[in-house]
Amino acid sequence: MKKTTDRSLPSSDLTSRPLFIVLSGSSGAGKDAVLAKLKESGYPLNYITTTTTRPQRPNEKNGIDYHFVSIESFQQMIKKEELLEWANVYGNWYGVPKEPVRKALAKGQDIMVKVDIQGAASIKKILPEGIFIFLMPPSKDELLTRLKQRHTESPSELALRLKAAEEEIKQLPLFDYSVTNRWDEIEQAVATIKAIITAEKCRVTPRKITL
Amino acid sequence: MKKTTDRSLPSSDLTSRPLFIVLSGSSGAGKDAVLAKLKESGYPLNYITTTTTRPQRPNEKNGIDYHFVSIESFQQMIKKEELLEWANVYGNWYGVPKEPVRKALAKGQDIMVKVDIQGAASIKKILPEGIFIFLMPPSKDELLTRLKQRHTESPSELALRLKAAEEEIKQLPLFDYSVTNRWDEIEQAVATIKAIITAEKCRVTPRKITL
Repeated sequence: MKKTTDRSLPSSDLTSRPLFIVLSGSSGAGKDAVLAKLKESGYPLNYITTTTTRPQRPNEKNGIDYHFVSIESFQQMIKKEELLEWANVYGNWYGVPKEPVRKALAKGQDIMVKVDIQGAASIKKILPEGIFIFLMPPSKDELLTRLKQRHTESPSELALRLKAAEEEIKQLPLFDYSVTNRWDEIEQAVATIKAIITAEKCRVTPRKITL
Repeated sequence: MKKTTDRSLPSSDLTSRPLFIVLSGSSGAGKDAVLAKLKESGYPLNYITTTTTRPQRPNEKNGIDYHFVSIESFQQMIKKEELLEWANVYGNWYGVPKEPVRKALAKGQDIMVKVDIQGAASIKKILPEGIFIFLMPPSKDELLTRLKQRHTESPSELALRLKAAEEEIKQLPLFDYSVTNRWDEIEQAVATIKAIITAEKCRVTPRKITL
């Protein structure tokens, strides 16, 4: 049925503004696992891959999990202002490239970046209109268990990470939403993140992202 | 496993604060139908029944759809300050009783009230920390069709309602969320409202409701 413009109700232009979603949270809270499930589910988000100088882990794919680059390349990106934010975490550099963010915004696509707390704090300064989600481990005990199971840290690194996680949780007030990730219920955390996105897309006053 | 307090992570006390959700929207947008589906689904909300002087429709149950009272009783409630808000809409009085709201808040239960736009505007002044959801008809054509199908309005009442609906949509900026209700997809609107509630329950800075 053909409809003339005057027959339509006033629109608040709710769907035309893309969301910029920052997924962060404690070290070991399960950011990667949640992100993987979210991607698997085919949820329509433009996922920005972080660039890092950290060594590639055996199960990781270059360009999917991270863009693995040399320190020299990373320094070049900083010089050319190609990074939205960057930080050194446990001796490795991590950065969010600007170009794919700009491209996605131009296409009106919702964007998700996964960053550590430092990264989230940096992005908050540049893009306060972003939606900041803090992924929270259910308890200290469970966090320790998970970090140990990962077998990627030495005991001293482990102690450092646990201490860091406690410090990181103090940054919670920077965030809009806190989502608890129980490791045996990752689907639950994923569903909650989807609910947050659904809700944000219904906002009468959308957050305008410019970069 | 017994856990001592110091083993837990800092909590932002996210779940302890009840939400006060105001479901409103254009006349004929389907507030009643959406509310009925939400109740049917067993979603844990304390639904506050509106008190009204409007005549009971054949399909309505007293105490469930509305508390149907006489004009005299309604005036008494106003005098005794037993109403959170009240308004005259199309010649009938509608009011939200305070007592069940207070009781639900005391129990920490999430509350939902269904009110017309006038009512939502009044509640916004008293409880700005509420979550205000505007239920939106998908189009003017569909709204007209629905109002006609309801067979509860005379042609002149119908014209008045349609005009009112257009005026009402101008109140959209008072609201937090806009949810479009396609009449053949009520479940979708219900799911969106649930998503909004889920998201609001994850807010790092919860809205504190006091009455």
